[in-house]
Amino acid sequence: MKVLVGGPGTLSGLTLRLGQCLFAAASIGTMVTALGFTNYTAFCYLIASMGLQVLWSLGLACLDFHAWKFKRDLLNPILISLFVVGDWVTATLSLAAACSSAGVTVLFSRDVRICSTAQYLQCSSYQISVALAFVTWFFIVMSSLIMFWILASA
Amino acid sequence: MKVLVGGPGTLSGLTLRLGQCLFAAASIGTMVTALGFTNYTAFCYLIASMGLQVLWSLGLACLDFHAWKFKRDLLNPILISLFVVGDWVTATLSLAAACSSAGVTVLFSRDVRICSTAQYLQCSSYQISVALAFVTWFFIVMSSLIMFWILASA
Repeated sequence: MKVLVGGPGTLSGLTLRLGQCLFAAASIGTMVTALGFTNYTAFCYLIASMGLQVLWSLGLACLDFHAWKFKRDLLNPILISLFVVGDWVTATLSLAAACSSAGVTVLFSRDVRICSTAQYLQCSSYQISVALAFVTWFFIVMSSLIMFWILASA
Repeated sequence: MKVLVGGPGTLSGLTLRLGQCLFAAASIGTMVTALGFTNYTAFCYLIASMGLQVLWSLGLACLDFHAWKFKRDLLNPILISLFVVGDWVTATLSLAAACSSAGVTVLFSRDVRICSTAQYLQCSSYQISVALAFVTWFFIVMSSLIMFWILASA
Protein backbone atom coordinates (compact mmCIF):
# COMPACT_ATOMS: atom_id res chain seq x y z
CA MET A 1 0.00 0.00 0.00
CA LYS A 2 1.27 3.44 -0.94
CA VAL A 3 1.93 6.22 1.57
CA LEU A 4 -0.12 9.25 0.42
CA VAL A 5 -0.29 12.85 1.69
CA GLY A 6 -3.18 12.87 4.21
CA GLY A 7 -3.00 9.08 4.67
CA PRO A 8 -3.09 7.37 8.08
CA GLY A 9 -0.02 7.78 10.28
CA THR A 10 1.24 10.91 8.47
CA LEU A 11 1.46 14.45 9.86
CA SER A 12 -0.87 15.74 7.12
CA GLY A 13 -3.39 13.01 8.01
CA LEU A 14 -3.21 14.05 11.67
CA THR A 15 -3.75 17.71 10.69
CA LEU A 16 -6.83 16.77 8.62
CA ARG A 17 -8.31 14.82 11.55
CA LEU A 18 -7.66 17.66 14.01
CA GLY A 19 -9.28 20.09 11.53
CA GLN A 20 -12.38 17.88 11.38
CA CYS A 21 -12.61 17.75 15.21
CA LEU A 22 -12.10 21.48 15.58
CA PHE A 23 -14.71 22.60 13.03
CA ALA A 24 -17.27 19.98 14.12
CA ALA A 25 -16.85 21.07 17.78
CA ALA A 26 -17.15 24.74 16.74
CA SER A 27 -20.35 23.92 14.81
CA ILE A 28 -21.84 22.20 17.88
CA GLY A 29 -20.73 25.07 20.15
CA THR A 30 -22.31 27.74 17.93
CA MET A 31 -25.59 25.83 17.59
CA VAL A 32 -25.84 25.13 21.34
CA THR A 33 -25.49 28.84 22.16
CA ALA A 34 -28.54 29.60 19.92
CA LEU A 35 -31.55 29.29 22.22
CA GLY A 36 -34.54 27.34 20.91
CA PHE A 37 -32.62 25.17 18.45
CA THR A 38 -34.18 22.07 20.10
CA ASN A 39 -37.54 22.98 18.49
CA TYR A 40 -36.16 22.05 15.07
CA THR A 41 -35.33 18.44 14.10
CA ALA A 42 -32.73 19.47 11.50
CA PHE A 43 -30.67 21.42 14.06
CA CYS A 44 -30.83 18.54 16.60
CA TYR A 45 -29.67 16.17 13.86
CA LEU A 46 -26.79 18.56 13.08
CA ILE A 47 -25.65 18.38 16.73
CA ALA A 48 -25.89 14.55 16.71
CA SER A 49 -24.03 14.20 13.43
CA MET A 50 -21.26 16.66 14.38
CA GLY A 51 -20.95 14.88 17.74
CA LEU A 52 -20.38 11.56 15.99
CA GLN A 53 -17.87 13.29 13.69
CA VAL A 54 -15.91 14.66 16.70
CA LEU A 55 -15.74 11.18 18.28
CA TRP A 56 -14.67 9.46 15.05
CA SER A 57 -12.08 12.09 14.06
CA LEU A 58 -10.67 12.36 17.59
CA GLY A 59 -10.22 8.58 17.75
CA LEU A 60 -8.41 8.52 14.41
CA ALA A 61 -6.34 11.61 15.35
CA CYS A 62 -5.08 9.74 18.45
CA LEU A 63 -4.26 6.70 16.30
CA ASP A 64 -2.49 8.88 13.70
CA PHE A 65 -0.51 10.65 16.44
CA HIS A 66 0.56 7.32 17.95
CA ALA A 67 1.57 5.92 14.53
CA TRP A 68 3.44 9.12 13.60
CA LYS A 69 5.23 9.42 16.96
CA PHE A 70 6.32 5.78 17.18
CA LYS A 71 6.73 5.24 13.39
CA ARG A 72 4.07 2.52 13.29
CA ASP A 73 2.61 1.38 9.97
CA LEU A 74 -1.19 1.71 9.68
CA LEU A 75 -1.32 0.62 6.01
CA ASN A 76 -3.04 -2.67 6.75
CA PRO A 77 -5.91 -3.66 4.35
CA ILE A 78 -8.34 -4.48 7.20
CA LEU A 79 -7.60 -1.21 9.06
CA ILE A 80 -7.85 0.85 5.85
CA SER A 81 -11.20 -0.81 4.96
CA LEU A 82 -12.48 0.14 8.42
CA PHE A 83 -11.29 3.74 7.94
CA VAL A 84 -12.92 3.89 4.48
CA VAL A 85 -16.31 2.69 5.73
CA GLY A 86 -16.22 4.96 8.80
CA ASP A 87 -15.11 7.98 6.79
CA TRP A 88 -17.79 7.50 4.12
CA VAL A 89 -20.54 6.99 6.68
CA THR A 90 -19.56 10.07 8.72
CA ALA A 91 -19.03 12.16 5.54
CA THR A 92 -22.52 11.26 4.25
CA LEU A 93 -24.12 11.96 7.64
CA SER A 94 -22.25 15.30 7.95
CA LEU A 95 -23.33 16.45 4.49
CA ALA A 96 -26.92 15.34 5.17
CA ALA A 97 -26.95 17.25 8.49
CA ALA A 98 -25.35 20.38 7.02
CA CYS A 99 -27.76 20.42 4.06
CA SER A 100 -30.93 19.79 6.03
CA SER A 101 -29.96 22.57 8.49
CA ALA A 102 -29.06 24.84 5.56
CA GLY A 103 -32.49 24.15 4.02
CA VAL A 104 -34.23 25.23 7.24
CA THR A 105 -31.94 28.27 7.70
CA VAL A 106 -32.59 29.45 4.11
CA LEU A 107 -36.33 28.95 4.68
CA PHE A 108 -36.21 31.18 7.78
CA SER A 109 -34.01 33.92 6.33
CA ARG A 110 -35.06 34.07 2.66
CA ASP A 111 -38.35 32.26 1.98
CA VAL A 112 -40.54 33.29 4.93
CA ARG A 113 -38.24 36.10 6.17
CA ILE A 114 -38.96 35.74 9.87
CA CYS A 115 -35.36 36.26 11.05
CA SER A 116 -35.72 40.03 11.43
CA THR A 117 -39.15 39.88 13.12
CA ALA A 118 -38.98 36.71 15.29
CA GLN A 119 -36.82 37.53 18.31
CA TYR A 120 -36.70 33.90 19.45
CA LEU A 121 -34.80 32.82 16.28
CA GLN A 122 -31.02 33.33 16.39
CA CYS A 123 -30.56 33.06 12.63
CA SER A 124 -26.95 34.28 12.54
CA SER A 125 -25.89 31.51 14.95
CA TYR A 126 -27.70 28.93 12.81
CA GLN A 127 -25.94 30.23 9.70
CA ILE A 128 -22.46 30.16 11.29
CA SER A 129 -23.06 26.64 12.64
CA VAL A 130 -24.17 25.40 9.19
CA ALA A 131 -21.12 27.03 7.52
CA LEU A 132 -18.80 25.31 10.03
CA ALA A 133 -20.55 21.98 9.36
CA PHE A 134 -19.85 22.41 5.63
CA VAL A 135 -16.14 23.07 6.37
CA THR A 136 -16.08 19.88 8.51
CA TRP A 137 -17.65 17.96 5.63
CA PHE A 138 -15.01 19.31 3.22
CA PHE A 139 -12.19 18.00 5.48
CA ILE A 140 -13.81 14.60 5.97
CA VAL A 141 -14.37 14.23 2.20
CA MET A 142 -10.65 14.82 1.64
CA SER A 143 -9.81 12.08 4.16
CA SER A 144 -12.40 9.72 2.62
CA LEU A 145 -11.07 10.13 -0.92
CA ILE A 146 -7.47 9.55 0.20
CA MET A 147 -8.47 6.40 2.16
CA PHE A 148 -10.53 5.01 -0.73
CA TRP A 149 -7.66 5.67 -3.14
CA ILE A 150 -5.16 3.86 -0.85
CA LEU A 151 -7.53 0.86 -0.55
CA ALA A 152 -8.38 0.65 -4.27
CA SER A 153 -4.79 1.06 -5.47
CA ALA A 154 -3.40 -1.60 -3.07
CA MET B 1 -8.77 -1.67 -16.47
CA LYS B 2 -11.10 -4.32 -15.00
CA VAL B 3 -14.68 -4.85 -16.19
CA LEU B 4 -16.91 -4.58 -13.10
CA VAL B 5 -20.65 -5.18 -12.58
CA GLY B 6 -22.29 -1.76 -13.08
CA GLY B 7 -19.26 -0.43 -14.98
CA PRO B 8 -19.54 1.56 -18.22
CA GLY B 9 -20.66 -0.34 -21.32
CA THR B 10 -22.26 -3.20 -19.33
CA LEU B 11 -25.96 -4.08 -19.14
CA SER B 12 -25.95 -3.59 -15.35
CA GLY B 13 -24.35 -0.15 -15.83
CA LEU B 14 -27.07 0.76 -18.33
CA THR B 15 -29.78 -0.42 -15.87
CA LEU B 16 -28.27 1.73 -13.09
CA ARG B 17 -28.26 4.80 -15.35
CA LEU B 18 -31.85 4.22 -16.45
CA GLY B 19 -32.86 3.80 -12.79
CA GLN B 20 -31.24 7.16 -11.96
CA CYS B 21 -33.10 8.88 -14.84
CA LEU B 22 -36.42 7.30 -13.94
CA PHE B 23 -36.37 8.15 -10.22
CA ALA B 24 -34.99 11.67 -10.79
CA ALA B 25 -37.73 12.36 -13.38
CA ALA B 26 -40.36 10.94 -11.00
CA SER B 27 -39.04 13.19 -8.21
CA ILE B 28 -39.31 16.27 -10.48
CA GLY B 29 -42.79 15.21 -11.66
CA THR B 30 -44.11 14.77 -8.12
CA MET B 31 -42.69 18.10 -6.94
CA VAL B 32 -44.01 20.01 -9.96
CA THR B 33 -47.56 18.76 -9.33
CA ALA B 34 -47.43 20.21 -5.77
CA LEU B 35 -48.66 23.80 -6.16
CA GLY B 36 -46.68 26.51 -4.38
CA PHE B 37 -43.36 24.68 -4.30
CA THR B 38 -41.72 27.70 -5.99
CA ASN B 39 -42.06 29.64 -2.71
CA TYR B 40 -39.37 27.45 -1.13
CA THR B 41 -35.71 27.62 -2.22
CA ALA B 42 -34.98 24.02 -1.13
CA PHE B 43 -37.71 22.59 -3.38
CA CYS B 44 -36.56 24.70 -6.37
CA TYR B 45 -33.02 23.47 -5.77
CA LEU B 46 -34.33 19.87 -5.71
CA ILE B 47 -35.90 20.38 -9.15
CA ALA B 48 -32.65 21.89 -10.52
CA SER B 49 -30.46 19.15 -9.07
CA MET B 50 -32.73 16.32 -10.24
CA GLY B 51 -32.89 17.98 -13.69
CA LEU B 52 -29.11 17.96 -13.90
CA GLN B 53 -29.14 14.32 -12.75
CA VAL B 54 -31.59 13.34 -15.51
CA LEU B 55 -29.41 15.01 -18.17
CA TRP B 56 -26.19 13.42 -16.92
CA SER B 57 -27.65 9.92 -16.44
CA LEU B 58 -29.50 10.00 -19.76
CA GLY B 59 -26.30 10.98 -21.59
CA LEU B 60 -24.36 8.15 -19.95
CA ALA B 61 -27.23 5.69 -20.53
CA CYS B 62 -27.05 6.45 -24.28
CA LEU B 63 -23.27 5.98 -24.20
CA ASP B 64 -23.62 2.70 -22.26
CA PHE B 65 -26.29 1.47 -24.67
CA HIS B 66 -24.09 2.28 -27.68
CA ALA B 67 -21.04 0.58 -26.12
CA TRP B 68 -23.08 -2.48 -25.09
CA LYS B 69 -24.85 -2.82 -28.48
CA PHE B 70 -21.72 -2.40 -30.60
CA LYS B 71 -19.30 -4.01 -28.12
CA ARG B 72 -17.21 -0.85 -27.74
CA ASP B 73 -14.73 -0.50 -24.89
CA LEU B 74 -15.30 2.52 -22.62
CA LEU B 75 -12.51 1.57 -20.16
CA ASN B 76 -10.27 4.47 -21.13
CA PRO B 77 -8.53 6.32 -18.22
CA ILE B 78 -9.57 9.77 -19.51
CA LEU B 79 -13.21 8.74 -20.03
CA ILE B 80 -13.38 7.01 -16.63
CA SER B 81 -11.88 10.10 -14.90
CA LEU B 82 -14.60 12.21 -16.54
CA PHE B 83 -17.31 9.77 -15.37
CA VAL B 84 -15.86 9.75 -11.82
CA VAL B 85 -15.85 13.56 -11.54
CA GLY B 86 -19.34 13.89 -13.07
CA ASP B 87 -20.77 11.12 -10.90
CA TRP B 88 -19.31 12.55 -7.69
CA VAL B 89 -20.48 16.07 -8.46
CA THR B 90 -24.04 14.96 -9.32
CA ALA B 91 -24.14 12.55 -6.33
CA THR B 92 -23.12 15.34 -3.93
CA LEU B 93 -25.63 17.79 -5.45
CA SER B 94 -28.42 15.16 -5.33
CA LEU B 95 -27.75 14.33 -1.67
CA ALA B 96 -27.58 18.04 -0.81
CA ALA B 97 -30.89 18.69 -2.60
CA ALA B 98 -32.64 15.68 -1.06
CA CYS B 99 -31.45 16.56 2.46
CA SER B 100 -32.27 20.26 2.30
CA SER B 101 -35.78 19.43 1.01
CA ALA B 102 -36.13 16.73 3.68
CA GLY B 103 -35.14 19.30 6.33
CA VAL B 104 -37.90 21.67 5.18
CA THR B 105 -40.47 18.84 4.84
CA VAL B 106 -39.74 17.59 8.37
CA LEU B 107 -40.02 21.18 9.64
CA PHE B 108 -43.48 21.51 8.07
CA SER B 109 -44.84 18.13 9.12
CA ARG B 110 -43.24 17.55 12.53
CA ASP B 111 -41.71 20.71 14.01
CA VAL B 112 -44.32 23.38 13.28
CA ARG B 113 -47.11 20.94 12.25
CA ILE B 114 -48.75 23.12 9.62
CA CYS B 115 -49.39 20.32 7.09
CA SER B 116 -52.85 19.48 8.44
CA THR B 117 -53.95 23.12 8.83
CA ALA B 118 -52.35 24.90 5.85
CA GLN B 119 -54.33 23.94 2.74
CA TYR B 120 -51.78 25.52 0.38
CA LEU B 121 -49.04 23.04 1.43
CA GLN B 122 -49.13 19.67 -0.33
CA CYS B 123 -46.93 17.91 2.19
CA SER B 124 -47.50 14.36 0.92
CA SER B 125 -46.24 15.36 -2.55
CA TYR B 126 -43.15 16.97 -0.99
CA GLN B 127 -42.48 13.80 1.01
CA ILE B 128 -42.84 11.48 -2.00
CA SER B 129 -40.59 13.73 -4.10
CA VAL B 130 -37.90 13.77 -1.38
CA ALA B 131 -38.09 9.95 -1.02
CA LEU B 132 -37.65 9.54 -4.79
CA ALA B 133 -34.66 11.93 -4.68
CA PHE B 134 -33.05 9.73 -2.00
CA VAL B 135 -33.56 6.62 -4.19
CA THR B 136 -31.92 8.50 -7.11
CA TRP B 137 -29.00 9.39 -4.86
CA PHE B 138 -28.62 5.74 -3.80
CA PHE B 139 -28.31 4.66 -7.46
CA ILE B 140 -25.86 7.42 -8.35
CA VAL B 141 -23.70 6.55 -5.32
CA MET B 142 -23.48 2.95 -6.53
CA SER B 143 -22.33 4.17 -9.97
CA SER B 144 -19.84 6.58 -8.39
CA LEU B 145 -18.23 3.93 -6.18
CA ILE B 146 -17.90 1.49 -9.10
CA MET B 147 -16.32 4.18 -11.34
CA PHE B 148 -13.91 5.30 -8.60
CA TRP B 149 -12.92 1.67 -7.94
CA ILE B 150 -12.26 1.07 -11.67
CA LEU B 151 -10.11 4.24 -11.86
CA ALA B 152 -8.16 3.58 -8.67
CA SER B 153 -7.47 -0.09 -9.42
CA ALA B 154 -6.26 0.61 -12.97
